[in-house]
Formats: sequence, C-alpha cells, structure tokens
Amino acid sequence: MAAPNEFYQFSIISALMDGVASHGIPISSVLAHGDHGLGTFLQMNGEMIVLDGDVYQMKSDGTTTHIATPQDTITPFASVTRFQPTSTTRATVSSKQDLSALLTRLFPAAKNHFLAIRMDGVFKSVNVRTAGGQREPREKMPAVANRQTVHTFEAARGTIIGFRAPEYVMGINVAGDHMHFINEDRKSGGHILAFETEGDVDVKVAQLSKFHLDLPTEDDEFNEASLVGDAQGIHAVEG
Amino acid sequence: MAAPNEFYQFSIISALMDGVASHGIPISSVLAHGDHGLGTFLQMNGEMIVLDGDVYQMKSDGTTTHIATPQDTITPFASVTRFQPTSTTRATVSSKQDLSALLTRLFPAAKNHFLAIRMDGVFKSVNVRTAGGQREPREKMPAVANRQTVHTFEAARGTIIGFRAPEYVMGINVAGDHMHFINEDRKSGGHILAFETEGDVDVKVAQLSKFHLDLPTEDDEFNEASLVGDAQGIHAVEG
Repeated sequence: MAAPNEFYQFSIISALMDGVASHGIPISSVLAHGDHGLGTFLQMNGEMIVLDGDVYQMKSDGTTTHIATPQDTITPFASVTRFQPTSTTRATVSSKQDLSALLTRLFPAAKNHFLAIRMDGVFKSVNVRTAGGQREPREKMPAVANRQTVHTFEAARGTIIGFRAPEYVMGINVAGDHMHFINEDRKSGGHILAFETEGDVDVKVAQLSKFHLDLPTEDDEFNEASLVGDAQGIHAVEG
Repeated sequence: MAAPNEFYQFSIISALMDGVASHGIPISSVLAHGDHGLGTFLQMNGEMIVLDGDVYQMKSDGTTTHIATPQDTITPFASVTRFQPTSTTRATVSSKQDLSALLTRLFPAAKNHFLAIRMDGVFKSVNVRTAGGQREPREKMPAVANRQTVHTFEAARGTIIGFRAPEYVMGINVAGDHMHFINEDRKSGGHILAFETEGDVDVKVAQLSKFHLDLPTEDDEFNEASLVGDAQGIHAVEG
C-alpha cells in the first residue's frame, strides 16, 4: 500500500492544456497510490473525483457514474494521495477565498508544500462546471472548457475533495486550490467554481511533502506537445 | 534498492536560488534513491558529483574530497538516479551544444522526459566552475556564484555526470542539460561551463519518466522562501 500523505500524479496539467488526452493508464494504477483525489477521463470527458478509494465520473450531461472496474478505465491525468488528515476541524466557509485563508491559518508554514483537503457537510450553494470532452484528438483544454456545463447545487449535502499546490508546480499541476464536489447520493457534482457552506462543515487537511510524478510513456501526443506552461491559461480554466 | 532509471530529487533549485542551504538530509538518504547524480553541500560549499554510488565534494579551493561517511554529511539539494543506460555509444563531442544535439538524435521523442547522461574518456578541455559557498545564511545563489572559481582542465581523462530536464520543470530543477565533471584520479572537477572531447568518448544515456521530489520539512528557510522560479536567473548561474 502507498505511504500516507504523499502526492502522486500521472501526467501534467500542461499536457491537458495542449489537448493530450487520448491515452493514459488504468485508474487501478492510480488507486495503488491513493484513495483521495482528482482527475479526468479520456478525451477530458467529465470530472473525476476519488473518494475513500471509489472513483466517480461526473459528466457534462449531469449524470455521474461510479467506476466499478477501475482496471478497465483509462485516465490521461489524475492526482491522488492516501489521505490521513492531520488537522480535523469544523468551520463555516463563505467562499473559496475564505477556505484559502482558513487553510493558511491551519498550516501557516505550508505555502511551499502541498495540502490535501476534504470537506463534508451541507453546502448552501456549490457552483460547478463539468467538461464536455474533446470533439477531436488534441483539441486544447481552453476550447473544451468553452463548452463546459455549469450547474449550481443549493442546500446540498456532499463532499469536497481537493488539493492545494505550491506556486512552483504551476504547469505540472494547478498552483493554488483545486477542488471537485460530489453530492451525498453520489449522483451529481463537478469541478468547483464557487461554494458556500450552510453553517459548519467538517474540514480535514494534511500536508504533503513528497511528490511523485509518472510521465506518459510511448504516447506520441505527450512526446510532441509543447507543454510551455501557460500559467494564465491554466488559472482561467482550472482556477 | 531503488528502481532503475527513476529521477529522485531533494528540495528544488529555486530554493538554492533563494539561498536556502542551511539544512537538508543525510547524503545516505539520497543514495538510497540512486548511484549517479549531482548536488551541492551545506552553504552551497562546492559541487557534488555521485559516481557509481561514490560521492565527491569539489570545492572552490581546487580540492576534492571523497565523502566517506554519507550518513554524516548533509545535502540541501541533490538529484540522483539508479543509472542503467539504455543507449551506449562512442562519439566525438565538440561542445555542450553538440552534446545536446547528440542527445536529441539518440532520444528524439524524449523532449518532455528526463535523461541521465554519463561520458567517460579524454577531454581536450573542460571548463568548470565551483561554488565557494555562502558568506551568511540565505545569501542567494547569484551572489554566491559571483565568487565562484573557474578552472580549465586540458587533456583530462575523467567522467561527466549529468541530467537533461524538460522545460516544464524549470524552477524545480534546471531545464536543459546540467553536468558536473570529475577527473580520473577523483582529485578535481566542478560544474561544467564548456567542454570538448579528445576524439571519441563513451556516451551512456537513459530516459527517466518517473520523478520523485522530497521537499524539506521543518525547515523555516525553505518554508519562508519565495521560490518564484526565476528562469532567467537559473539559466545564468546553472546553465
């Protein structure tokens, strides 16, 4: 089993930006490294959330599928940790910015490290997007994002899973806070654009200071991509 | 033992740029991940080369020390692999640029991956620098580099150890080719600024597609550093 609270990632966010999403590895290979995380699917078809080792695909048509056979489902990009929270608290959080400030209060010396984040409870509102997928191979993420579906859940009980990554990994991952939501019945959710809790929710956090990156091999799309690291573009579609 | 041809790194190059060099881990911990690599020592006092699992400290006064007890010597930054070359050739190399072109010919699909490099033979000239160390804690690398010693070896038999890193890791490591030299009697060497072989030398290379990064923990210097990733500055002092 993977060591707890280490950050594992397959491929890099700049590859998705460049439209590299035709190949990847079985999700079961990702789950060998963790039970808590985020990612996407072939052709960027929806948002992945990994919750207690279960993987869900949240699609732009509003449906959510539990991935029952992760050995048969490929991901072109995913990041996970075997989550063992070292900080557990209850807090009312009014926005992403407010969560960001809370995380900094809880881990004041962690700006150059990774954090794994989980929140469980009732959310007054959660505004999410779900990527609709590429129309053709190598279609870039900003073009895919132009067709994303946006949805707002109100008074929704559910779970937020996410990571904070330090500034210096921008291009490899998304610098800052990056979170996905799934509701309690695991039937809907997406990539969080904004949220607000309904009173206190459970907030669990761990600092991650070991990073493992597996690069795609024998993948011409990856090998040929420019991967220039468009920080502004990444913030626009993933921020 | 570590898996072969994976890239392991402790701390990030932007931390050295910011002068974070007062703490670290025992070199023995680095050697658990590889037998071939580069690095530096506390206070950036000299250049580290890891050659067949042996570690040498090449100082600005021209002396070179074999680190006989790596468990007792701390490094603030190092990168290694357990090197198993997958390409072995003999070649005459006229410059760093010529080596760069050779590596690209040997591994045409590896621009977004890491390479580990080793060259053994006689070098017509090798121009090296050795860092003289910080005068005070947090003195930044560009200031340290202003006091570096530069030396040229001629008709020198020895070994070059190095890595190529992809553009998107700039700030975490040095994008491009980064190499150190040590002569055959292991008595002198340094960070390579320029070199030219005397006829053919042995060139051994492997592609590395798994990257492991351990961040310093409980290190206030690291936690407080800005780590902004000054690509131009890194190229100036490490290119």
